[in-house]
Order: sequence, then C-alpha cells, then structure tokens
Amino acid sequence: MAVEWSGSPPDTFLQLDRQRPETLGSQLQNALRTAVREGRLRTGERLPSSRRLAVDLGVSRGLVQATYEQLVAEGYLSAVGGSSTRVAFRPQATAVTPPERLPAARMEIDFVPGRPDLNSFPARDWLWACGEASRTAAAREMGYGDPRGSVRLREVIASYLQRVRGAVAGADDVVICGGFTQGVSLTLAALRAAGATSVAVEDPGHLDLPVLVRRAGLNPVFIPVDDGGLVVDDLAGTDATAVIVTPAHQTPTGVVLTPERRRALLEWAAQANGVVIEDDYDSEFRYDKQAVGSLQGLAAERVVSVGSVSKSLAPALRLGWVLAPRHLSDRIAEDKHRGDRGSPTLDQLALARLMESGRFDRHLRRMRGVYAGRRGELVEAIGRHAPHLELTGLAAGFHAVALLSEGTDEAAVVDAAAQRSVGLQGLGRYRSVNSAGPPGIVFGFGAVNRDAIRRGIAAVADLLR
Amino acid sequence: MAVEWSGSPPDTFLQLDRQRPETLGSQLQNALRTAVREGRLRTGERLPSSRRLAVDLGVSRGLVQATYEQLVAEGYLSAVGGSSTRVAFRPQATAVTPPERLPAARMEIDFVPGRPDLNSFPARDWLWACGEASRTAAAREMGYGDPRGSVRLREVIASYLQRVRGAVAGADDVVICGGFTQGVSLTLAALRAAGATSVAVEDPGHLDLPVLVRRAGLNPVFIPVDDGGLVVDDLAGTDATAVIVTPAHQTPTGVVLTPERRRALLEWAAQANGVVIEDDYDSEFRYDKQAVGSLQGLAAERVVSVGSVSKSLAPALRLGWVLAPRHLSDRIAEDKHRGDRGSPTLDQLALARLMESGRFDRHLRRMRGVYAGRRGELVEAIGRHAPHLELTGLAAGFHAVALLSEGTDEAAVVDAAAQRSVGLQGLGRYRSVNSAGPPGIVFGFGAVNRDAIRRGIAAVADLLR
Repeated sequence: MAVEWSGSPPDTFLQLDRQRPETLGSQLQNALRTAVREGRLRTGERLPSSRRLAVDLGVSRGLVQATYEQLVAEGYLSAVGGSSTRVAFRPQATAVTPPERLPAARMEIDFVPGRPDLNSFPARDWLWACGEASRTAAAREMGYGDPRGSVRLREVIASYLQRVRGAVAGADDVVICGGFTQGVSLTLAALRAAGATSVAVEDPGHLDLPVLVRRAGLNPVFIPVDDGGLVVDDLAGTDATAVIVTPAHQTPTGVVLTPERRRALLEWAAQANGVVIEDDYDSEFRYDKQAVGSLQGLAAERVVSVGSVSKSLAPALRLGWVLAPRHLSDRIAEDKHRGDRGSPTLDQLALARLMESGRFDRHLRRMRGVYAGRRGELVEAIGRHAPHLELTGLAAGFHAVALLSEGTDEAAVVDAAAQRSVGLQGLGRYRSVNSAGPPGIVFGFGAVNRDAIRRGIAAVADLLR
Repeated sequence: MAVEWSGSPPDTFLQLDRQRPETLGSQLQNALRTAVREGRLRTGERLPSSRRLAVDLGVSRGLVQATYEQLVAEGYLSAVGGSSTRVAFRPQATAVTPPERLPAARMEIDFVPGRPDLNSFPARDWLWACGEASRTAAAREMGYGDPRGSVRLREVIASYLQRVRGAVAGADDVVICGGFTQGVSLTLAALRAAGATSVAVEDPGHLDLPVLVRRAGLNPVFIPVDDGGLVVDDLAGTDATAVIVTPAHQTPTGVVLTPERRRALLEWAAQANGVVIEDDYDSEFRYDKQAVGSLQGLAAERVVSVGSVSKSLAPALRLGWVLAPRHLSDRIAEDKHRGDRGSPTLDQLALARLMESGRFDRHLRRMRGVYAGRRGELVEAIGRHAPHLELTGLAAGFHAVALLSEGTDEAAVVDAAAQRSVGLQGLGRYRSVNSAGPPGIVFGFGAVNRDAIRRGIAAVADLLR
C-alpha cells in the first residue's frame, strides 16, 4: 500500500506493509526518518495533520500522533504552536563511500607461516567447556571482573606454566589478555610509562613487532640473529632497555637461543636494568624432544613471558596471558582495565575448565602428531623434489626455513609460485630495511595437510632449485 | 622418597614421588630448577654424575642425562668438558610481594548504578547461541578475522540499530569491539590522530569519561547539564572539537536532551567541523514509551554511536560496537586490529545468532518488565518512607536520582547508609572538581530485587529526610 501526499513532492511515499513483522508504527517512523534524511521532506515543510494521515494510511490517529511525538523528540520534526507539524531539520547528505577492499588472492595451497590447523579446532570440547563455564559461573562473575582476569584461569595458567614451561608463576603474576598482540602492546605501554624509549627486536624477526613497538611510542632497535639465536652482545651498544625474543624457537629462522646466550641475555638485563620480553609462541609443539623451558624461570624479576592459545587452539578465541614481575603486572592490569575492562569472562572460565579437565593436553598431544607428520611430509617432499635444499631450524612449531642458493631472486620465486597458486613467503619479509642475508623461503605447514604439502612442493620444486 | 646429596648443602633435597601424575623426569627437572633458583645449589657447584644420581634416586641413568641436557639448554646448568655438570647461573632472588588488595566493603543492599541484574543473564540462550556459532563457523573463521569484526554480526547490529534506534547503518559502518570503554577509547584515539586536542563531556556525567579522554592524550572540557540535558550553547566558547553525550537518558540525571538542543548540537558539530559521540548505553530500557531514537540517524557523518550488550545481557561478555562515519571507522578498525587483533569470533557469532533468533528481543521484553517493576517499587518505597523526596529523570534504565534538601551533607548520608550496609552513591561523585550543584543520591536499581529495594529504602529513609 502506498500513499502519496497532496502538497508533498510527488516522489514522497510512505510504504506500510501489514505482512512484515515490523510494527506499523515502527514502519511509519522509519519511512518518515528516511524521507527527512534524504531531503524528500524539506526543512520547514508542513506535514499532514495526524487525522488526515491516519485516514490516508488506514491506521489509527493515535499511532500517527505517537509517531509525530517520537520524531519531534528526536529532532526530525517540530510541533509549531501545538498544531501543525513541520520538518525541523535537514541532515547533511550522507556520503556513502563504498568499501574499498580487494580480497587477497586465494592460493590453492598456501604455506603461510604462523597459522595452526583451523580444521582441528576442538569445537566439541570447547563447547563442553563453555557449558561448564556457563553452568558454574556465579552471577557476580557476569559483571565487570578483576582487571587481571578470572582468578580461576590465572591459577590454571600459572600452574600450567610452572608444570610445562618451568616458569615461576603465581595467579597474581598473571594478567589475562586478548592474545599475544595485546599482551605485548600492554607490556610495551607499561615499559614506556616506566621511562623506556627503545626496545630491541630480533632481525630477522616477527613482522608485527617493530609496528607494535612504534605504536607504543617506542623506538625499535634491530639486533641480528645467527645460528645461535639473538646476537646478545650487540645489545650492549644500543640504548634499548628491553628486548623481545623468541628463545625456544626463533621466528622465523627456527633456531634455539644457546645456553650461553640465555645467560648473557639475563646478565645484560641485570646490568642495564632491562627487561626481556619472551614471546613463548609455539612451545607446545616440539617434536624431537621437550621444548626448552621458559627464560622467565631463570629471572622472574627481569622477564615478561607472553603466551596465547592462538597456536594451541585457535586465533579466533583471542585469549592470552602476560606473566610479569609485579612492578610491571600492576601497570599492565591497570592499563588493560582502562582500555577494555578485561577479556570476556565466560571464555576465560571455559579455557580454565578445558585445561583443568585434561582436554587441552589431549588436544595438544593429538596436534603434536598431526604437525610432526606434516613436518615429516615437508622434509620428505623437499628431499625428493629439491634434494639440494636444506631445511634449517628445530623440529618444532609450524614452519621451517630453506635457504636458497646465493644470488637467487627470492621475490621472483615467491611470485612465480603464486602464479601456480602456491603461497610462499620469502625470508626477506622478516628482515629490517637495513639488514641483508641469504635468500630463503619460510614454509608454514600448520594449515596445510600432508597431501597438499606433497602437491605444493612438487608444483614449485623447479623454482627452488 | 628423599635423597640427600653428599657434597651438597645438607638442605638440598630432591623429592620424587611415584604416586603423582607428573612424570619423574618432570619432577626431577622442577626440583633442580627450584634448587638453583632459590640458591640451594650455588653457581659453579658440581652436580653428582648422572650415574650416581640415577642410583641414588632409583631412576634410569637416561632420565638423569636427559634432565641435565634439558637444564643445560635452558641455562640452569652447564656441562664442562663434556663430563662434569655444574650450576651455571644463579638467578636474582625473586622478591615475592604479597598482593595488596583490600576487598571493597560488601553492602547487604547495594544501590550501585549502571549494573544490570546479573542473575537474569540468559545463560541457556547464550549457550544455545554458542553451540550454533560453534556448529556453523567455517574453519577459516577460527583464524584471525576481519579487523571490523565478523561481517555476520555487523549485519545483524546494523539492521538492529536501524530498526530499533532509527540509525543509518550498514555492516561496513560498524566496528565490533570489547564494550563501551574500548569503543570510546578507540574513537578518542581516532579523533586524536585526526588532530583533536579537547573533547567535551557532560557535567555531571559518566565517571570514567574524563579518565578515558585524558588517557587518549586529550583534554576533557566539562559542559554543564540542566533539565534539558547538555547545555549545548556552552560548547561554543571552548576549543572542544568533539563531545560525548548521553542524549536519550542522561547519566546520571536521567533527563532527555530536548529536540531544540539535539538540533543545536548537530549545528554546532557542522560549524565546528566537530564530532558527537553518542553513548547509547541503556536505550533498550524505557518503560513509559519508546526510547528517543539515535542522534546518529540525523547526522551519520557527524555522529559516532557507541553501544554494547553490557546492560542488555551482561558486562562479562565484553561485546560492543562503534557505528561511525567512514573517515573515523577506518582508523578505529585499524587501531582495533593493531591493538588486539579483534574480539573473539565465536562470541561475535553467538551474539549474531542470539539477535537473529529473536531470543535477544525476548530477553529484553522480559527484562523491561523486571526493571519497570523495580523502578515502580523504588518510587513506591520512597513515596512511603520519604514522601518529600522527588525522583527525577525518565522512566528508563536502571537508575533514578533524588535531590536532597539544600544544605544536606551528601557524603554524610552515603556514609551513614553504608554503616547500615546499604550502598548509596552521591550525585557529587559525578561532578567535575569545579562544578557544584544540589546534593542528591543516584539510586541504581538494576541489580536489586523488589524486596531488597523495599527493605533498603526503609532502612535509610530517615537519612534522606
């Protein structure tokens, strides 16, 4: 049903549809708002009386009156002298910019690093844990919680980090956060507030870290990485008072920080009154032996350890933790509280139940088998199709690095592989602007099944030779 | 079983317990780490040979060797000349500071404002929605998502805001965030990046806002509120280029911004090239009539509307949204991505399902009845026990304000009520340092049942007279 007003521009229609679930009052309000917004009803224009419009539309006069009152309260209309109703405001035209986002080209087989197998997310166990959390949460736990996070989860995480990572941790040393990025950002903000100006990062290293350091108002200092991990001696010549490291499995080279350098790093921290931020990102997954324990266990007053479930469960859960000495954890918790009032409580309680119940460990055991199999497949496929290539790094995590023969154009290899719908990443992407090094490829195998690994390597092997 | 080493300090023990689920290897590692950390094994001290310790502990030599290797890799021990193993590092003593947190005094009946009824959280519906989310989420949705949030939730929110709040919203105009605090903080950061220096806030107003404004590196400017809401004319004399308002139901006075001032506010924004941040915090709950629609609908290019489910469902969910013009929403989304890589996806999908399924609306209908009943009870109790007191503000939300007779010492009333275990909040808490106004009490009734409202008012009525 469409009604055209006499005295209104001919293109002003009010459409009411009795078949729709939306009430007639709501439909009438929205139609009038839209007409005002779009300039079809102009500022100052007089609307029909409520009696007249009610007759035209076949609705009650009360409904029209209520609609007019509502839109007067909202500023769209005004009631002049208590009788005639006019359009009160003509909003600026809303420039509707269409979103400009090109979807990234989808690779048929994508060796993107840092991505776990999303198909293996233990959805049923997680839902069970959500149910447990929902069932057992006290009403007060549905309000705003402790800025450090649920004490139950903090206890579980502290005990897990002690048991599995050799950390020194009590529930009060842990702050729950929304994953690694937020954990590091909060730590950097706390360091900045305490007077830091420069923070060292590994080179090559995690792509996001220099960005996060700068975003915190700090200056990134690039320190080279060699076969023994971070070249700790190079810290001495800088003004960095903190350093972000991946000691158990370096990103991206896959090496482990040697025992001598672990000690040297902590000596540097003690002398420089510095802080070591340990990115404990994939220590759940080592396939040949136990992962090297957390640096934090050696110097709990100097080391901040940041972890998450993004690799062990799924990035989409956005749950992580910061284990930090008290002088930093207080600031971190306050900043977390000020910034977002904490992470979702039911998710925290669900993770606590998942870990307590043994289901988390069972999932990790299963995934260790899956990822070790994929790594084996990668090693074998490269051995078969590109036998001269040597994979470096530990039998750990979801990625392996292969150096290309000197002079190879790394970017050209990546581009050529993309033409065949195989996604590769060059080692150069992980290097700072001023550093150089041999060309190489970082193969992520977490999200690629064994068959795809075989096919993917076969498809690009000639490029790697 | 406890073994004392000869040649070691007599208080150095290694306790292995075959009854515990922890493996003997893990127990031995942890015992050695702890002994090194606590200085019971001193730097340079020689450990027994693996053969000898294996015999002492009744374990295999391989187990001791593996333990020594692990702790060498971690930097606790070193293997000198391939034969003798020594303590390599003595960490600094870990100063364990006991947490200093005094629990807030628990009131038997607490009229704290801004808190919904946590007992009414629809846990079963939420769990159902989590199940649906979990069941229907594609594997790729378990990875890192769109920085603006799940497109499904954004579509649902946009359509909800159009339908219920008269907003102009498409899915691309919405950024999902972790509640109101994060939404406002992201908006303030985007304004700061665009050159803003000062942001106006209502006085009296939301307690946290000046803090959040300062935290964003901006200067809060306090603008008075009277019976018609924010005194918009006062904006003109300031350098503020943005203002945070509660137009539909002012916090804490409970008044509504008049239609004239709504228009004046948008005219100010157009002239000052300013931005209005609309805190749409409790528009779900108006009991006498429909809530006044969103300001955003009048000027989508000038208004940022921030909402959350903290009042409608529960604060613990930490889910909210920012509806903003494109030039701000792009920055907001980028900053959200940089800061925490987005809100948890399954929670977002669950909220989308809850809203789509009609369960969210059903919950709101039920809660409107509950809260309207509580408000009625409050009005009645005050009418009976303190009849001269007048409650001001709309029949909306979870709080009402009563002005006390002039000269009353508001703080003394609050203290005296606390002595009777009744929590009250003075109006003065919501005022800036430099402003004054009549004494008053803000009664929050969202989390207090009708019986408690009756008893609470009866218990403190003499103080209010």
